[in-house]
Amino acid sequence: MKKKTFANGASTMLHESLDGFAHCHRDLVVLDPGYRFVRRHATTPGKVALVSGGGSGHEPLHLGFVGEGMLDAACPGQIFTSPTPDQMIAAAEAVDTGAGVLFIVKNYEGDTMNFAMAAEMLNGRAATLVVDDDVAIEPSSVTIGRRGIAGTLVIEKVIGAAAERGDDVAALLEVGKEVNAATRTMGVALSSCTIPAADVPTFELADDEMELGVGIHGEAGWRRTALKSADEIASDMVEKIVTDVAPVERGRVLLVLNGLGGTPMAELYLMYDAARRRLERYGFEVHRGLVGSFVTSLDMAGCSITVTVLSESIAALWDAPVTTAALRW
Amino acid sequence: MKKKTFANGASTMLHESLDGFAHCHRDLVVLDPGYRFVRRHATTPGKVALVSGGGSGHEPLHLGFVGEGMLDAACPGQIFTSPTPDQMIAAAEAVDTGAGVLFIVKNYEGDTMNFAMAAEMLNGRAATLVVDDDVAIEPSSVTIGRRGIAGTLVIEKVIGAAAERGDDVAALLEVGKEVNAATRTMGVALSSCTIPAADVPTFELADDEMELGVGIHGEAGWRRTALKSADEIASDMVEKIVTDVAPVERGRVLLVLNGLGGTPMAELYLMYDAARRRLERYGFEVHRGLVGSFVTSLDMAGCSITVTVLSESIAALWDAPVTTAALRW
Repeated sequence: MKKKTFANGASTMLHESLDGFAHCHRDLVVLDPGYRFVRRHATTPGKVALVSGGGSGHEPLHLGFVGEGMLDAACPGQIFTSPTPDQMIAAAEAVDTGAGVLFIVKNYEGDTMNFAMAAEMLNGRAATLVVDDDVAIEPSSVTIGRRGIAGTLVIEKVIGAAAERGDDVAALLEVGKEVNAATRTMGVALSSCTIPAADVPTFELADDEMELGVGIHGEAGWRRTALKSADEIASDMVEKIVTDVAPVERGRVLLVLNGLGGTPMAELYLMYDAARRRLERYGFEVHRGLVGSFVTSLDMAGCSITVTVLSESIAALWDAPVTTAALRW
Repeated sequence: MKKKTFANGASTMLHESLDGFAHCHRDLVVLDPGYRFVRRHATTPGKVALVSGGGSGHEPLHLGFVGEGMLDAACPGQIFTSPTPDQMIAAAEAVDTGAGVLFIVKNYEGDTMNFAMAAEMLNGRAATLVVDDDVAIEPSSVTIGRRGIAGTLVIEKVIGAAAERGDDVAALLEVGKEVNAATRTMGVALSSCTIPAADVPTFELADDEMELGVGIHGEAGWRRTALKSADEIASDMVEKIVTDVAPVERGRVLLVLNGLGGTPMAELYLMYDAARRRLERYGFEVHRGLVGSFVTSLDMAGCSITVTVLSESIAALWDAPVTTAALRW
């Protein structure tokens, strides 16, 4: 089946979508007139400015996380394409109040390269934290390591709260590394996404197949298997996550059941429950939960399971107030 | 392509999903042990209890709207199937503190019949407000009138705030009729939904077709046409809405751009902007906006546009605080 989208043309799609976002959330954010970034209305003097960004097609990530308690600015690239260093520099300059800037970067080659270039051109005003929560990819000498996927929202939320309480850049890097190390994600696709400009699906899955460990751009995953029951899928994913977490860390966890875009909420809640039951069998207590489509892959049917082991301090930062388009409490 | 879902079997699907919902949102809601309804933890003595419900497959409607500032309880039916009168009675009895119950009912034959039966068996303790915001269906002698679709969330939010401030049943019915009369919705589908048990799409759309005025169960709409540009689609939908609103009512409006389930957020924001520009051309001011997938049709690609003309009092009720799984401010 051919892909159908709401669009007026591929070249204006991103800007029109950003215009809609900026109008709808004009109480929270401002869109740069050059479409280079979205930023909070008010910056807080003395607070480290948090800037993230990445390819579009994963909405509400990252734009939806700009606001009090989370990001100061986010740079949207074209669909599945890193934003450029000049976008990152412009965003950093717009929100830096003198306390420095922290870039939060998902571990992909384009993103890390462009954020590194921007950091260099900012002459030490910006530090960088890389998110790499995807357990599907084993670190090796031929890849740049694990990808950054849905765990990114946990890291952005937790560091956001730490920045709000006044942590400096060094302290934020420490919190960031702690929460990144405590966070693991694994995804599964039941169908491919379709990039609007491409018209055809990024990859093919047979009617009885699924892709475990899929990336958020439709990258090949860990294993392609026959479609299993929800309990079996959750079991495979949770096992992969749990065996990656040191045994001493078992205890309270945050469970994020993230939809990849095309999966209905009822199925996401069902998968949340399957993952929760499986985690409890391993001795974890699901202390906090979040269900929804937050880090998506266009219209892909599928989900990801993120588990963050909660220390007292990470739990408190997760619970701290947040006011953004996509997360509010 | 065959439909793939996260499931352990059709017979347990709804209960497992409700278990996940109840665990994830256990700070806000309690699930009845018989799976008949979801209710708020705390009821407020003297406050009229608001109860809604309907077939599942439209999540987060209605469960996601239970909480402070909105519903007291919601009854989930099987997929696209009305809940039963005994569910509604059990819910009403669980949340009625003596100030009476108001049923909020989408205008479908099964729902109105079952809620009427429940109201009768409650011997006058429950009044009923019917929502019928869908402009695609012309009232006629052969139908029960316009369907209740995404405008339902606006009505539930506004009446929820009015109940919270202490309005009695008669006053709530008045507010409810006012906001229902000020609210119009129209939907469009780019693809059909697929009911998990059915495996095949509910209806067929060719690669170059769309269905304007589609219902949230995949019912035939107003007109099937060739796929148009986003601006043309928004223009057709807004025109149908605007010509239905009395000219004297032009002024400030709330615009809800609701995803039907399978459409990415970036496209929803793009459609929001297209609808906003069109509304402004007609002389309306888009005073408030909401974008997201709130009243869905499983995995259907498509969206609906809801416009509510905002009087001062409706605007204040919309802005009042709300704490539910799906809406929070």
